[in-house]
Amino acid sequence: MATRNLLLLPGDGIGPEAMAEVRKLITAMNEKLGTGFATEEGLVGGSAYDAHGQAISDADMAKAMAADAVLFGAVGGPKWDAVPYEVRPEAGLLRLRKDMELFANLRPAICYPALASSSSLRQEVVEGLDILIVRELTGGVYFGEPKQIIDLGNGQKRGIDTQVYDTFEIERISGVAFELARTRQNRVTSMEKRNVMKSGVLWNEVVTATHKAKYSDVKLDHMLADAGGMQLVRWPKQFDVIVTDNLFGDMLSDVAAMLTGSLGMLPSASLGAPDAVTGKRKALYEPVHGSAPDIAGQGIANPIAMIASFAMCLRYSFNMVAEADRLEAAIAAVLDDGLRTKDIMSEGKTEVGTTEMGDAIIAKF
Amino acid sequence: MATRNLLLLPGDGIGPEAMAEVRKLITAMNEKLGTGFATEEGLVGGSAYDAHGQAISDADMAKAMAADAVLFGAVGGPKWDAVPYEVRPEAGLLRLRKDMELFANLRPAICYPALASSSSLRQEVVEGLDILIVRELTGGVYFGEPKQIIDLGNGQKRGIDTQVYDTFEIERISGVAFELARTRQNRVTSMEKRNVMKSGVLWNEVVTATHKAKYSDVKLDHMLADAGGMQLVRWPKQFDVIVTDNLFGDMLSDVAAMLTGSLGMLPSASLGAPDAVTGKRKALYEPVHGSAPDIAGQGIANPIAMIASFAMCLRYSFNMVAEADRLEAAIAAVLDDGLRTKDIMSEGKTEVGTTEMGDAIIAKF
Ligand SMILES: CC(C)[C@H](C(=O)O)[C@@H](O)C(=O)O
Ligand SMILES: CC(C)[C@H](C(=O)O)[C@@H](O)C(=O)O
Repeated sequence: MATRNLLLLPGDGIGPEAMAEVRKLITAMNEKLGTGFATEEGLVGGSAYDAHGQAISDADMAKAMAADAVLFGAVGGPKWDAVPYEVRPEAGLLRLRKDMELFANLRPAICYPALASSSSLRQEVVEGLDILIVRELTGGVYFGEPKQIIDLGNGQKRGIDTQVYDTFEIERISGVAFELARTRQNRVTSMEKRNVMKSGVLWNEVVTATHKAKYSDVKLDHMLADAGGMQLVRWPKQFDVIVTDNLFGDMLSDVAAMLTGSLGMLPSASLGAPDAVTGKRKALYEPVHGSAPDIAGQGIANPIAMIASFAMCLRYSFNMVAEADRLEAAIAAVLDDGLRTKDIMSEGKTEVGTTEMGDAIIAKF
Repeated sequence: MATRNLLLLPGDGIGPEAMAEVRKLITAMNEKLGTGFATEEGLVGGSAYDAHGQAISDADMAKAMAADAVLFGAVGGPKWDAVPYEVRPEAGLLRLRKDMELFANLRPAICYPALASSSSLRQEVVEGLDILIVRELTGGVYFGEPKQIIDLGNGQKRGIDTQVYDTFEIERISGVAFELARTRQNRVTSMEKRNVMKSGVLWNEVVTATHKAKYSDVKLDHMLADAGGMQLVRWPKQFDVIVTDNLFGDMLSDVAAMLTGSLGMLPSASLGAPDAVTGKRKALYEPVHGSAPDIAGQGIANPIAMIASFAMCLRYSFNMVAEADRLEAAIAAVLDDGLRTKDIMSEGKTEVGTTEMGDAIIAKF
């Protein structure tokens, strides 16, 4: 079996603790299933800045470009609040996304049945929730130029960011959304602010045209992004796949994640385009939660989002569908057994630490 | 008593029905209390477009500039989905905001006790909720230039919007937030995406400096806007006043509004700077809900948000604090009596139409 090359970038805060559980899982899979995963390690975020003054080094970027898939923990923390903008922890993540051209960010918002009662929403509103947010990840206001602060004199400064989208960028991300919808409930809701933004007008136009040309079997709706945020809170089950731009996707996927009551559980995948010859796509997998510096190093972080991100990696990068299904089933089984890390603990359940949770999932796998 | 000049812009959809209730209320106040309100009427949105091909005419803009306050219903509907961008219904509202320099948008998100059970969130999460979102309304990506679609040839177009904030704009909106916080729980949370946007870096810097220079008695926190959206869903009562930019404010205030389960009930105020000589500020008051074309003309729309917007008008434009308090109490009393329009109807309550709801509130006032 061909070697499968993974780059592990644990990052900051609880990133390394969560990644340690995936490392154990990979070892176990190699031993038991002969999966032939080969791993390398690198630094990103604050830990990379501490080591060599950059949010990710060129050497680690080269490893990321060469790997079959990157597993990413989390970046940031108060320790680096005052570092220069260019080398802040997030810059490492943004460089990975941009240089690897990971334009398609898949964020499932799933409500684990065992956790429906821990959402701030009523149980009937979130129980059984399964939506997928497809967020454009390499364009929009995150990367558009000019992006700068100008000194105007007289104590006045001007902060500028630029939202830019080209036709091809909207085409390719909506293509991903339509394709994925076909494997689900076959419905896509596109969200923008066409009533205020010209990029929103173009977004709406291109999604509509892409739908008409290639995906007219999929049901397509358009919703203004602010109304979309409302509808996510009101009745999220109305959605199947949501496709939206980088900034709206950032906001909306975080709201969607919080709905589920399962924030510590949610994975994400960031994918590039398939290579014209090999069909392979660059990919990075990361939990939706952040680095949670307040609980880092205590052994209480929930590793499930990181492990579920690895399940997405099995599915999307290695087409190991059966293994991905089994890993996701193992997570659900452990929850059904009543095991809980502190963040999802509730009465009558058994509180466990990061490593116990990881071990339990590996044992069920 | 000096005449108080109001411009009524009912707009489209349910706007005219809701405004009719405020008109009755104004007449009643003039008769019983001698409040001396003088009203003019104008067109905005789709109805203005139908009448004279613009989303608001220059004549009506002049009336708005001259009025002591503008009451605004709602704009938009499928009928005008295909009109040119420059004259789309929303352009009327945006022109009012811009030309009147209404930079401060106040959006209270209050959970009426009688309605706590109609939220999609758990009752304990929203019961007693009372937060105020202070949204910058004349800057940011709504108005920054360039804002255009460029034809790149080869079937490619580029949509561009520009997010721009100057120091003075951030100073004045944060000043409003700090002042209002002093009349409440004395806490402000500022939200931006400084980890991705240069305007966010400047926003954070200026809010911090304004706080230090003039409002250090107020508790100030900073939160990334995506995390802020999450926290609104998780535990909204942690907030008192939230200050944020135009686009984040649009998203976050809609999410906050939906939390309360009282969307049809929520008012807003958009205020300009006090005149250097008279101290008067230009102002526009509008419900947070939209034009709801699907239920327009049926006499079932909830007029409470529009009436509550008039209460804000009494408070902020005419300093009629006692009357504003009484009007808000009248709304709460009618709800306590069990009257409900269709949108907030629940078992055991009495369903009423738009005019009955308006009449009931006027009777209690
Ligand atoms: C860390 C930050 C730059 C990032 C973003 O804004 O994209 C994060 O919020 C996310 O959603 O992945
Ligand atoms: C109608 C639209 C232009 C407006 C906005 O985006 O500001 C609305 O959503 C609002 O929040 O007042």
